[in-house]
Amino acid sequence: MNASNERGERQGSDTYDVKTFHDGLVKHGLIVPVRVEGAFGRGAVFESVLEAVNALITRISKDDGADFYTFPPVIDRTILERTDYLDSFPHLVGTVFSFLGKERQAKELSDRVHASKPWGDLIGMTDVCLNPAACYPVYPTITGILPENGRLITMTNWVYRHEPSPEPTRMQSFRVREFVRAGAPDAVVTWRDMWLQRGVEMLRGLGLPAEPDVAADPFFGRAGAILADGQKAQKLKFEVLVPVVSLENPTALCSFNYHQDHFAKVFEIYQHGGATKGSENTAHTACLGFGLERVVMALFRHHGFVLDDWPKAVRERLWP
Amino acid sequence: MNASNERGERQGSDTYDVKTFHDGLVKHGLIVPVRVEGAFGRGAVFESVLEAVNALITRISKDDGADFYTFPPVIDRTILERTDYLDSFPHLVGTVFSFLGKERQAKELSDRVHASKPWGDLIGMTDVCLNPAACYPVYPTITGILPENGRLITMTNWVYRHEPSPEPTRMQSFRVREFVRAGAPDAVVTWRDMWLQRGVEMLRGLGLPAEPDVAADPFFGRAGAILADGQKAQKLKFEVLVPVVSLENPTALCSFNYHQDHFAKVFEIYQHGGATKGSENTAHTACLGFGLERVVMALFRHHGFVLDDWPKAVRERLWP
Repeated sequence: MNASNERGERQGSDTYDVKTFHDGLVKHGLIVPVRVEGAFGRGAVFESVLEAVNALITRISKDDGADFYTFPPVIDRTILERTDYLDSFPHLVGTVFSFLGKERQAKELSDRVHASKPWGDLIGMTDVCLNPAACYPVYPTITGILPENGRLITMTNWVYRHEPSPEPTRMQSFRVREFVRAGAPDAVVTWRDMWLQRGVEMLRGLGLPAEPDVAADPFFGRAGAILADGQKAQKLKFEVLVPVVSLENPTALCSFNYHQDHFAKVFEIYQHGGATKGSENTAHTACLGFGLERVVMALFRHHGFVLDDWPKAVRERLWP
Repeated sequence: MNASNERGERQGSDTYDVKTFHDGLVKHGLIVPVRVEGAFGRGAVFESVLEAVNALITRISKDDGADFYTFPPVIDRTILERTDYLDSFPHLVGTVFSFLGKERQAKELSDRVHASKPWGDLIGMTDVCLNPAACYPVYPTITGILPENGRLITMTNWVYRHEPSPEPTRMQSFRVREFVRAGAPDAVVTWRDMWLQRGVEMLRGLGLPAEPDVAADPFFGRAGAILADGQKAQKLKFEVLVPVVSLENPTALCSFNYHQDHFAKVFEIYQHGGATKGSENTAHTACLGFGLERVVMALFRHHGFVLDDWPKAVRERLWP
């Protein structure tokens, strides 16, 4: 008996199937399909569960003293350029192009669109790109010397990854409830490890067969495979996994990432108490994020597509 | 005495100044500036007011029977292509480009980024663009013959407009609480006019000097000026305006738009009861949207930057 079955998995492993799960979400009005993959609409019940999950995370962390922000789905493009995002994840990036021309070019643009001809060469790159991970816009806002206990910031932001897929949990656009910690290395690692435990407990408390594991980011190409090995060897990234569309390849519902001084070096974030802004005082950072849509989907997968049929304990945890 | 002063405008017309207002929002932690214009972060208090405004709109409309959806910030690119958006507003569009190449091109991309050289020509257009108005993703989901009373759908979506500006109310990325009505022409127009009245009353009930006016969309170029005149002459668009950064040019906090059969023709949406799907049965649609950040900013402009100092009646309206 595997972990899933022990924890009351209802539908049997034979139903771990992408299409069955997708069609069930659609049939019950939980998602609204659109022409492109990974950009579907969310229905009212789906959203009510998502808001309840987010509120549960707020309750769990209410005594942590986090500063709360919301950033828009588009961010300063130079953040990606300065943090080597385009080295590591060029295939996932979403940059924003707009029409920067005058009347004559606008006429050509219109003609091309109406003739169903390619028109991408008539538009140009703007100063913004889509936010690839909820924490990115935060770092430039905390440049300088940190307060004594560092900083703790939380956000719910829409993020974008260019990975269209028919698999419902692999979206182009989704919401992440994120926490970012900046401070001394020890404090940051301790905080990350504390939250890994919290994440496992929260998801198990919702009746999900959650298991933590060491993980790696989906780095691009051959060099990326080496980066991923290094990341795993150093245990920089953990995930909490729950089977949603596959028993063999469970879905990461949250991830916990220790960046060392990667972001702090770029954005000149320093630990408190250093006499100088020397590199020995560079802060360390970590972030963690709950993929809110994925948590919601895992709940519908394990407790059924009808909210009223969910176990009472789960509903009470979400709506106390 | 003008409408603003009659309704208790506190700071005097000499303070209708972009920089004063922007700096006040920043100083009080309501927004968090970033390097690019119109993409700032929102602080906790700002968000709490935004959520309260959105909840007030939900209460006002609770008996209307609207279906509730959430769509992501990116939508199917062909929606813009098919609805002539690129004819009317090419300068506002945001299309999403990503890296579609292999290892060799990725190396060149990395080299260019690290050398601070342009790299836009190394990436290509994806199937998604940013949503330019909250209602766009809805129309393709209601293709077909409408139910007897038509459809009413509401959403809170992030929208994008490529118009970077230091003026806080002119954002690249912001949230719109939207309602879409589809049905018979008379029903749609009556509904639009009812909401115009509701919008004025709601904003005045929050102590804002709100005035309705006929309006036009910011169509591009010389031909656009003619389109705008036609739109005004036909009274297809109304706005409710409140002075925020200028007394002479008040800010539109909400807009009410009658599309006639523009969207329904493209997406083949038909009125109930027609024996055939002939063009005489094409439905009409209208939409209305509250610019949530703009409503919040108008409240801080008229009641002061400190929430606790707001008039009791306004706070009770928002948090009953």
